[in-house]
Amino acid sequence: MLIVGEKINTSRKAVKEAVTAKDEAFIRRLARRQHEAGAHYIDVNCGTFVHNEPELLSWLVQVVQDELGGLPLCIDSPNPAAVEAALKVHQGTAMLNSITGEKERYDALEPLVVKYGCKIVVLTMDDESGIPPDAATRFEIAARLIESLAAKGVSYDDIYVDPLIQPISVDSKNGLSAAETIRLVRERFPGVHFICGLSNISFGLPERKLLNQAYMVVCTTYGLDAVILDPEDKRMMALVYATEALLNRDPYCANYLKAYRKGILKE
Amino acid sequence: MLIVGEKINTSRKAVKEAVTAKDEAFIRRLARRQHEAGAHYIDVNCGTFVHNEPELLSWLVQVVQDELGGLPLCIDSPNPAAVEAALKVHQGTAMLNSITGEKERYDALEPLVVKYGCKIVVLTMDDESGIPPDAATRFEIAARLIESLAAKGVSYDDIYVDPLIQPISVDSKNGLSAAETIRLVRERFPGVHFICGLSNISFGLPERKLLNQAYMVVCTTYGLDAVILDPEDKRMMALVYATEALLNRDPYCANYLKAYRKGILKE
Repeated sequence: MLIVGEKINTSRKAVKEAVTAKDEAFIRRLARRQHEAGAHYIDVNCGTFVHNEPELLSWLVQVVQDELGGLPLCIDSPNPAAVEAALKVHQGTAMLNSITGEKERYDALEPLVVKYGCKIVVLTMDDESGIPPDAATRFEIAARLIESLAAKGVSYDDIYVDPLIQPISVDSKNGLSAAETIRLVRERFPGVHFICGLSNISFGLPERKLLNQAYMVVCTTYGLDAVILDPEDKRMMALVYATEALLNRDPYCANYLKAYRKGILKE
Repeated sequence: MLIVGEKINTSRKAVKEAVTAKDEAFIRRLARRQHEAGAHYIDVNCGTFVHNEPELLSWLVQVVQDELGGLPLCIDSPNPAAVEAALKVHQGTAMLNSITGEKERYDALEPLVVKYGCKIVVLTMDDESGIPPDAATRFEIAARLIESLAAKGVSYDDIYVDPLIQPISVDSKNGLSAAETIRLVRERFPGVHFICGLSNISFGLPERKLLNQAYMVVCTTYGLDAVILDPEDKRMMALVYATEALLNRDPYCANYLKAYRKGILKE
């Protein structure tokens, strides 16, 4: 499972303050802690800064990559100017989060994906359907976007479909709709990857962490192979290791046993 | 999810002592606690008493049903004499755990299933293959047994297939083999149910509860709808409620919210 650490996001108050103050030490610590807790990519998002997002996002990229010896980042913005500024300074293969079927956004970001050869997160939404409630329409949107990107030379292995999780408190079918989207896309496009954030599933319900954790297991059973989360949530990480071992993605339970020895699995 | 409480089993030392001493109060307490924690069926197993299993099993049935106002039990024995003694005194529709494709066992137990009209757990093993390592052979065994039972008038709704979970420490494909068995049987025989115990999956590995819990979520995603477990394991029960809500088996998250109000979901 590819783990994307979600914590460097200026929608969190402490991060917003650190970015405002250009507090490099704070950002470095937050990046390092997530990496040490198991993150393979660090997400950077300063979308709350509407006026100077390009400058701040490229600053974040440089600070985090400097701290972590060039670890790849997940550049989290729909703003083409910010995305390009960040990709320009990023070393190695970044992941861009995200493109959608919305025409204006797609047309602005697709050339950057091609130019910089980055991995790309594809959200299953477009102008016509918004976020469709059903898996079939989400599949159609994903299929169209995958084919468009592939036609420009983007390999399936660089595409991460995000099935757009909606709260089960709003509609109890929402959990299955996103999971079924994974199944449908995976059957049609073997080699494509799947990514999501989890917390939206539990919006409006109590004991949200429990639901987020169980939903990670459900989606991984359907084929999720990347996830945006807080790697310092030990219980969630323990379940990631357990689930991978159970689904035969961890030969000889080697990573599970390593996580055990590092004390990650303990309740 | 149908919950079968597993604790009245004489392989547990305290239960063995209680059954030896005919300590009715102990058995009543253990039955009531499991029922109050959410068990729909109570499993009774005194298979360690090879000489007087029939007498002791029927004693257990009477004590537990008397305590719980006739709650149905899961009669857990391969011994036809013990099974018949227990079914004779059982009120309402029992579940029998279990029949297999082993000829001698099948021939002895099938007539009792038909005579007493009980629900029947079907293990996917037989004389020829033992416990087959692969899902395809397990499916074939299950299919043969389902068709034999159906030919005698047993309805699909009374059949619970147990895909026989083997440890992932022995073969990392074992988790998927059992889950895939569920998928294959469910596709071919809609209406049939699926049941299993979970603890075997984690044999030989550390932090077994974590693996058992994650595997419950995996198997439920594949279609498991009954499970033999310790209902006093709050974390496991919390995950059961969460998983059912996520898989659209709990309209309006009503059972999830009820479990929350009862304090079951709290870590």
